[in-house]
Amino acid sequence: MSTQKTLARLPGFRDFPPEDLALRARLFDAWRRVSRRYGFVEYDGPPLEPLELYTRKSGEEIVEQLYTFEDKGGRQVALRPEMTPSLARVLGERSRAMPKPIRWFSVPQLFRYERHQRGRLREHFQWNVDLVGEDGVEADAEVLAVALDGLREVGLGSEDIRARVSDRRLLAALLKSVGLPEERLEAAYAVIDKIEREPEERILERLSDPEDVGLDDATARRVLEIFDTPTLEGIEERFAQAEGVAERVEEMRRFLGSLHDLGFGDCVDFDLTIVRGLAYYTGIVFEVFDRQGEFRAICGGGRYDDLLDRIGGAGLSAVGFGMGDVVLGELLRERGAVPEYRPEVDFFIVPIGVEQLPLARRVARAQRNRGLSVVYPLRKQSVRKSFSAAASEGAREVLVLGPDEVEQGVALLRDMASGEERNVELARLLEVPEPAGKAPVGEG
Amino acid sequence: MSTQKTLARLPGFRDFPPEDLALRARLFDAWRRVSRRYGFVEYDGPPLEPLELYTRKSGEEIVEQLYTFEDKGGRQVALRPEMTPSLARVLGERSRAMPKPIRWFSVPQLFRYERHQRGRLREHFQWNVDLVGEDGVEADAEVLAVALDGLREVGLGSEDIRARVSDRRLLAALLKSVGLPEERLEAAYAVIDKIEREPEERILERLSDPEDVGLDDATARRVLEIFDTPTLEGIEERFAQAEGVAERVEEMRRFLGSLHDLGFGDCVDFDLTIVRGLAYYTGIVFEVFDRQGEFRAICGGGRYDDLLDRIGGAGLSAVGFGMGDVVLGELLRERGAVPEYRPEVDFFIVPIGVEQLPLARRVARAQRNRGLSVVYPLRKQSVRKSFSAAASEGAREVLVLGPDEVEQGVALLRDMASGEERNVELARLLEVPEPAGKAPVGEG
Repeated sequence: MSTQKTLARLPGFRDFPPEDLALRARLFDAWRRVSRRYGFVEYDGPPLEPLELYTRKSGEEIVEQLYTFEDKGGRQVALRPEMTPSLARVLGERSRAMPKPIRWFSVPQLFRYERHQRGRLREHFQWNVDLVGEDGVEADAEVLAVALDGLREVGLGSEDIRARVSDRRLLAALLKSVGLPEERLEAAYAVIDKIEREPEERILERLSDPEDVGLDDATARRVLEIFDTPTLEGIEERFAQAEGVAERVEEMRRFLGSLHDLGFGDCVDFDLTIVRGLAYYTGIVFEVFDRQGEFRAICGGGRYDDLLDRIGGAGLSAVGFGMGDVVLGELLRERGAVPEYRPEVDFFIVPIGVEQLPLARRVARAQRNRGLSVVYPLRKQSVRKSFSAAASEGAREVLVLGPDEVEQGVALLRDMASGEERNVELARLLEVPEPAGKAPVGEG
Repeated sequence: MSTQKTLARLPGFRDFPPEDLALRARLFDAWRRVSRRYGFVEYDGPPLEPLELYTRKSGEEIVEQLYTFEDKGGRQVALRPEMTPSLARVLGERSRAMPKPIRWFSVPQLFRYERHQRGRLREHFQWNVDLVGEDGVEADAEVLAVALDGLREVGLGSEDIRARVSDRRLLAALLKSVGLPEERLEAAYAVIDKIEREPEERILERLSDPEDVGLDDATARRVLEIFDTPTLEGIEERFAQAEGVAERVEEMRRFLGSLHDLGFGDCVDFDLTIVRGLAYYTGIVFEVFDRQGEFRAICGGGRYDDLLDRIGGAGLSAVGFGMGDVVLGELLRERGAVPEYRPEVDFFIVPIGVEQLPLARRVARAQRNRGLSVVYPLRKQSVRKSFSAAASEGAREVLVLGPDEVEQGVALLRDMASGEERNVELARLLEVPEPAGKAPVGEG
């Protein structure tokens, strides 16, 4: 019967047949539930935006990585690669009239055209949570708690994951105290971000390279030595005299203390090598990893106090994170935390003959009005075939409408798990409760 | 503080700030709930697809209306303007192994670049419901029932809306019986589709126009006269001798009877002028309108038995519909069926001094673990300011942590609706229930 060869989907894009959509829906539900628990409300923006929104934030280099084109009206447009610029645009328009802090979250699909990366995805969904207009580390702690609670909600607790946290202002104070000039800070962050993944010689080389950070050898070595002291206590002691360090350490303590109060003390580690690659972070930064360290970061975020203003003109401090569905999905599968997909309906109705089909529809109507899911055969078919259909639909119960029983005003109800059978009165099955009717949207 | 002028979003695209997202979420929830009630399962596809997927279905003319471009790999791609081609692609790959019928639904965002239409949207969300692999009118009735139940679920019953239904095969039999040649059928459908919106002379002109349907005057007049008989009974009587009419009338009766059994008899009208503009429908077609006729169609659909095969190679019959969020949203607003947006949290905690902030976080932790939503101030602020924040967050209850009460092991709980106040024991507020922990995704 087939007359066409199948067209493939684009490389890097996913279909979501029901078994994959079920996992996606479970993640989204958990993210939404947890967001609300912390008082965050959902927003969204368009998946297509003016290209300038992204170049304004990240410079022209970003164009390389985007799905970008000229639309039929001659506008340069791009599929959104991240949510923060849209957030900045919307808040630029309306934040003035809003009470602060603003607690907003979103679950956008994001797009990036990455060249030469076979097998890497070009789209993913990302949970974006932002707390805007509040600049203390207590706000930072609240936001990281949302991320950690979101992971716990899908089954990943302190045994599975850990957040590594740092503060760019503390790192800046330390770097300056060993002689790194202020204007080399950003270049140094980019190198320190790689400390874990690259050998020490390579890091030293980059710190000394005049094209890179450009330090003299002694300073480069002193920079690297900072990371020999991994604990907050150690840093406090060793750099007690350095300008600004004591107060940053004190803030980090308040941050960690708040997370402890919020129930996440045992999955948060201070880690000075976490800086986040991106230029715009201004304070606390964090990344969440699986404890075994097998996967890429599950989540990353931090404080960005200048960015909303720079992109959208809303002069507001902010802290937020993004958590993608891809790494998280891989981790959950690997941990066996994804239940097997099974379709499920409450009732499958089996009419013995076509004469019982109208009755099957009337029972379906009544039971659906109660909120139950009901399936029945749409054509004449054998009872055997109906029971097999009931099984593949995942029916909890099968209701058999036989001519003799119907005449006596009953039907046979079979529980598919236990195999138990009993007669139920048709009159009761046919009682139609008042439908949702004129209730307001979603309240029915 | 602002340093940037605001960047506008693209024309024809919407932002969804929380008050708009709330309505969208209510629609989506209702659509999903109702789909499941009828045994449908959710799927999704990529928002970006190969352009050929759409030209294969609709010819090269469609390109005019699409967001289409060449990606960095040299592929011609398009933002999806509709869901059926993606469905056809996915089913082409996997339907062979699936039990039939297949009941799938989706809630995609769709895109169309419409030139010269200021104020018209270029994106919308659409509820797509398809029943695949079952060709009787009972399947058609089941699908239309899903659409009507979806509308009832958001508050639109038989007083508000009506479905106008027809059958292209019945119309074809009638047209042929008055002398319209088979090969002119499609051209005639396109003209009949406009009967309601254009004056009779214009319709006659188009039926006669050799560039359009190209009938002689007498046949054109007879075609138009068909629509003088608006009832099924009238048609049955008048065209009793015409080939194929009696059996199509009988099928229409079974279709309407099934809808009656399913509880929607009073919002379905037979209406021969409904043909749907699109070429690919092959049987029952329907459109749902508001009763006053103020709005465009809320929903349209029908049977398309050849299309899945033509696009994706799955040789399966199908019936389905699409319902957009835009017209429906307008209608609901006009009917006053959209409740006012109010943010809502369960608890707002007011620490009298900063000393109570850690306790506030611990209470928040415990109550969030119970699934409640909790907000507390992230900095030192006056009690007055906290109460005003509690009001703007929509707090149901405010919990006041005062130094004296805390010392006595209690806190003051105020119900914001009634103003009632009572002391509650801190120990109880601090009991942390076992968190969701290792439960599988979404079961926590």
